[in-house]
Amino acid sequence: MSGLVVQNIERTDPTLVKALGECGVATVHEAQGRKGLMAPCIEPIYSGATVGASAITVSVPPGDNWMVHVAIEQLKDGDILVIAPTSPCDDGYFGDLLATSAMARGCKGLIIDAGVRDVKDLAAMRFPVWSKVVHAQGTVKETLGSVNVPVVCSGVNVCPGDVVVADDDGVCIVQREKAGEVLANARKRLEAEESKRARLAAGELGLDIYDMRARLSAKGLRYV
Amino acid sequence: MSGLVVQNIERTDPTLVKALGECGVATVHEAQGRKGLMAPCIEPIYSGATVGASAITVSVPPGDNWMVHVAIEQLKDGDILVIAPTSPCDDGYFGDLLATSAMARGCKGLIIDAGVRDVKDLAAMRFPVWSKVVHAQGTVKETLGSVNVPVVCSGVNVCPGDVVVADDDGVCIVQREKAGEVLANARKRLEAEESKRARLAAGELGLDIYDMRARLSAKGLRYV
Amino acid sequence: MSGLVVQNIERTDPTLVKALGECGVATVHEAQGRKGLMAPCIEPIYSGATVGASAITVSVPPGDNWMVHVAIEQLKDGDILVIAPTSPCDDGYFGDLLATSAMARGCKGLIIDAGVRDVKDLAAMRFPVWSKVVHAQGTVKETLGSVNVPVVCSGVNVCPGDVVVADDDGVCIVQREKAGEVLANARKRLEAEESKRARLAAGELGLDIYDMRARLSAKGLRYV
Amino acid sequence: MSGLVVQNIERTDPTLVKALGECGVATVHEAQGRKGLMAPCIEPIYSGATVGASAITVSVPPGDNWMVHVAIEQLKDGDILVIAPTSPCDDGYFGDLLATSAMARGCKGLIIDAGVRDVKDLAAMRFPVWSKVVHAQGTVKETLGSVNVPVVCSGVNVCPGDVVVADDDGVCIVQREKAGEVLANARKRLEAEESKRARLAAGELGLDIYDMRARLSAKGLRYV
Amino acid sequence: MSGLVVQNIERTDPTLVKALGECGVATVHEAQGRKGLMAPCIEPIYSGATVGASAITVSVPPGDNWMVHVAIEQLKDGDILVIAPTSPCDDGYFGDLLATSAMARGCKGLIIDAGVRDVKDLAAMRFPVWSKVVHAQGTVKETLGSVNVPVVCSGVNVCPGDVVVADDDGVCIVQREKAGEVLANARKRLEAEESKRARLAAGELGLDIYDMRARLSAKGLRYV
Amino acid sequence: MSGLVVQNIERTDPTLVKALGECGVATVHEAQGRKGLMAPCIEPIYSGATVGASAITVSVPPGDNWMVHVAIEQLKDGDILVIAPTSPCDDGYFGDLLATSAMARGCKGLIIDAGVRDVKDLAAMRFPVWSKVVHAQGTVKETLGSVNVPVVCSGVNVCPGDVVVADDDGVCIVQREKAGEVLANARKRLEAEESKRARLAAGELGLDIYDMRARLSAKGLRYV
Repeated sequence: MSGLVVQNIERTDPTLVKALGECGVATVHEAQGRKGLMAPCIEPIYSGATVGASAITVSVPPGDNWMVHVAIEQLKDGDILVIAPTSPCDDGYFGDLLATSAMARGCKGLIIDAGVRDVKDLAAMRFPVWSKVVHAQGTVKETLGSVNVPVVCSGVNVCPGDVVVADDDGVCIVQREKAGEVLANARKRLEAEESKRARLAAGELGLDIYDMRARLSAKGLRYV
Repeated sequence: MSGLVVQNIERTDPTLVKALGECGVATVHEAQGRKGLMAPCIEPIYSGATVGASAITVSVPPGDNWMVHVAIEQLKDGDILVIAPTSPCDDGYFGDLLATSAMARGCKGLIIDAGVRDVKDLAAMRFPVWSKVVHAQGTVKETLGSVNVPVVCSGVNVCPGDVVVADDDGVCIVQREKAGEVLANARKRLEAEESKRARLAAGELGLDIYDMRARLSAKGLRYV
Repeated sequence: MSGLVVQNIERTDPTLVKALGECGVATVHEAQGRKGLMAPCIEPIYSGATVGASAITVSVPPGDNWMVHVAIEQLKDGDILVIAPTSPCDDGYFGDLLATSAMARGCKGLIIDAGVRDVKDLAAMRFPVWSKVVHAQGTVKETLGSVNVPVVCSGVNVCPGDVVVADDDGVCIVQREKAGEVLANARKRLEAEESKRARLAAGELGLDIYDMRARLSAKGLRYV
Repeated sequence: MSGLVVQNIERTDPTLVKALGECGVATVHEAQGRKGLMAPCIEPIYSGATVGASAITVSVPPGDNWMVHVAIEQLKDGDILVIAPTSPCDDGYFGDLLATSAMARGCKGLIIDAGVRDVKDLAAMRFPVWSKVVHAQGTVKETLGSVNVPVVCSGVNVCPGDVVVADDDGVCIVQREKAGEVLANARKRLEAEESKRARLAAGELGLDIYDMRARLSAKGLRYV
Repeated sequence: MSGLVVQNIERTDPTLVKALGECGVATVHEAQGRKGLMAPCIEPIYSGATVGASAITVSVPPGDNWMVHVAIEQLKDGDILVIAPTSPCDDGYFGDLLATSAMARGCKGLIIDAGVRDVKDLAAMRFPVWSKVVHAQGTVKETLGSVNVPVVCSGVNVCPGDVVVADDDGVCIVQREKAGEVLANARKRLEAEESKRARLAAGELGLDIYDMRARLSAKGLRYV
Repeated sequence: MSGLVVQNIERTDPTLVKALGECGVATVHEAQGRKGLMAPCIEPIYSGATVGASAITVSVPPGDNWMVHVAIEQLKDGDILVIAPTSPCDDGYFGDLLATSAMARGCKGLIIDAGVRDVKDLAAMRFPVWSKVVHAQGTVKETLGSVNVPVVCSGVNVCPGDVVVADDDGVCIVQREKAGEVLANARKRLEAEESKRARLAAGELGLDIYDMRARLSAKGLRYV
């Protein structure tokens, strides 16, 4: 059932994608009801990168990166690669040559539930990667996988065209159809946080701002 | 048995706390007989921070950060939060808003045997955190825990008012009553190390400085 | 069978060692047929270091760093320490004093399938370490091990005098007798990569450069 | 977005479910193109159990088993519970009382990406469980989740009414709509295997039965 | 600070110890407010053993089992060994000879946050062990530890004379002074469970028995 | 450098192999100076099996079991398969059909630093397997590896013809040339243990039998 490349996928509106990326992972995750977050073992290879991009999904066999070459042809400006192996694998599927090729096509980065290599070069190129591991172990090119089919990547469903939000806190996926609604929620959260941040910085307590004392007392909290 | 907030704890003398922090984790750990060291999975979210501070302990349910809000009210200048869940949990209990509030009360940082989020912001604020994981996953506010009761955090007993020493090597706890004695030992070690460092840098061998050759030979070491 | 220090080992030609270090781990690993790579849990304590050096191997008991002192006497300029415990151990075998001593003898760094401490100091000294963990836990000096015997370090055989190549991608070992051949292969790879990098950066696809389309089609790849 | 109980789900035809269970996990997984297999950390609490059953899915908060009580009311004869926490959790969500209740309603077992307890009793009752861990740690009943919504359980999508096949090899999910097709494939595999097993037992080689020698030689295999 | 053997410890009343053992880990853990439970990585080497016993604690260096010999002399009938290394270690500290010696002195089993070996023999002898790992790796006898001092074993404080309850669900520690109170609670739980078990087996729902429907509805649970 | 099948290997004398198997892993490991032990993650799929056999080594790519078919042709009576992937992999390389074929050629079992499947059938056939994991995930047949070349399997060097000793404690490798010497040592240990076992069972203490009291006292052990 593999060996499929879906070419004409629907992408999310670039304005939404960009705006969601700016909200950051923690906010977006909350704004969509605490869903879509990858496991914390998916970490950035360098600190400080922030991405909002549209997913090109790649289902790959363990230890075989052939389909990554196929996927790169499907990239358009504003896309990000989301690579999920069909069984757990730590091999280094991706390095600086693939990154060079992907960047030439407008690719914003890589999410991979496996390994990556040439990380010093990738950092110098400012090509952001969130991976399970850094490993120089190479791969073969023998077995087909698929491009732009739904994948489960680090515990999360990702469909082609979904929004990928990634920063130092990890990676969160927003379904394409919900991008607008989630962005609206996220912006409300950010506004609410802004006013609270000022009050907290001034020394007010969350206990008072969020009006928690009565409920804590009703639950039986005792001060001694 | 949870639902308790102990308000008037004894803290360690701030001069001792500060001095222990400057000695660093490896030295302090040796100076108190190789005890009190948290497991190495507790790592700093950014490199280079060094802390000596007095513990405010927080026992929290898995996936529930309500008591962190309660704990913040108990913070005084020079304190550090030490948060231990009652069963293993990777959720992100703490982010930039809580850090803002904690800093407003003089808090020196956070030790948590669970997850943290907003790490890019926390690094920008220079609010040091040692955590088990970085994870954007949020928590609820439904179940009580306790503040300033003894906890086991990453394998180590921590009582309120104990000294927390943390740097890039990890986190070490010094019992309040032993802070003076441990500091004296630590300083002796540092002085001894200073003279040895100069000799080692000059090319002398530890084998000679520490007079190891005879004992190695007696144990049967053979050179071929 | 432990308690042995082999003194007159053969080292690899320093010119080869240096050149292999400059090729980097991913390239060298490919150039020798994807062999000799340590597991990805062996990570650098700071980013950006690159090393090519000749191995001084140290077999140590768990929790005992006595033999590291013995090994330092065997170091010559251009060597690197490769420390493997005889059973898995996370203790901090090595810190800034040992690094001071090793640097005084020309040591280029440390590879250790165990823990290291004083990492802030080690980074400041620019003494590169690839370790399994950072841990302040100290060790004893009671039991013999051996120096310059073959060891298995993080899944890889290392003989004294083998070439150690290490960078942000991990650690790869090249057998002393194969250093010349591997370097020749590595240089060929780098040259080939250089021309491909330019073409990829210009927007050409790997599918075309590597002539993959026919074989993919023969395997059954379908575009929809 | 949680707090939902879907009551009238479509189940798979019981004849298909039973037949798929008898095929076993390895065969079913192959028969559907190597998809739908949970991670190997999901293990049976006792050896020898084999199950084919229709999924009742339960999305639960970390450390909170309230929704399991809700889910039990939805069970019908031939169902199995599939419990997935919304963030990783090792707590013991399920024990002998819940199993007693579930069995009274015809439940065939439990798949849980978290912990279970009372395992000695569960084994004595022959209530099969595949879990991530055995842990006596209890849970609270404070926060809603959902019943019979799609969940990701140990890396696999599970919809209510999907077929769960589980044995000592692990757990595989077959989508409800594909159950008939997968069963037909599985039976073909079993028949083919039967004839091969006899030939292999008689000493014939897979190299000959599967006609591998020419292809191996073409790839370059050398015998020395 | 190690090198201490405390000889005259207070043990818990044997009647309490035995009765707590019969209650089982899950019940005892609940009965003392969900405290005292070791991490789930501490597992029995064979299924079906149940123990209630009084702790003889042993603090050991990594890879060194000398103090186990010292501890055996301190065993009395009804005791159990609780061994905690001072830093994480997987070595096999204990095998059939030590078990023979311990059984000759009335020892009821072993809890160890490290490795054990000769497990086939131990199972044949019916000497129950809960350990982190099975590993044939031997240890040395070079460095002192302590016997009958407080230890942290797999995240739990254990004092000499505390009650150890262990079964297939794991290991739970009851403080000596609280044994009577915890037993009383545990028995109340068991009685309450007994009547509930009968009702659940008869098909009544926990939703009704525990009167959960109104509270679930108030929290917003919707049935569709 | 892969793609090699070495056909005429030297095996160890079958009498030695059998006798070493009967000594057991813990004894053999001690008898050869605590070397050759695989990591404890290599576990038996069922309890109670004991094996002494001569190694047929197989180096396999991740996720590809083609070479296992090639290796089976090289098996002779008394051999055991030792399979090591070239990068870490949890896939199920081996199931009941391969076991049927291997048994038909006299194979005594399997050691694999990867996954295995059909474990219920393998247990019923009494085909013993020591593996890293049980996983139904299948493999492809696309890439060559090698048979009867030296491999590193779970941290240990294994050469074709080496002796594999495996039981519930794990797996230990004895080099072919050392089999006689190790057996002699192992037998001495077993005899010495036998007399000690009787004395320990009679209540004598190891402290006295091994004459430890003076040395403990000299190290500073204090009884209080």
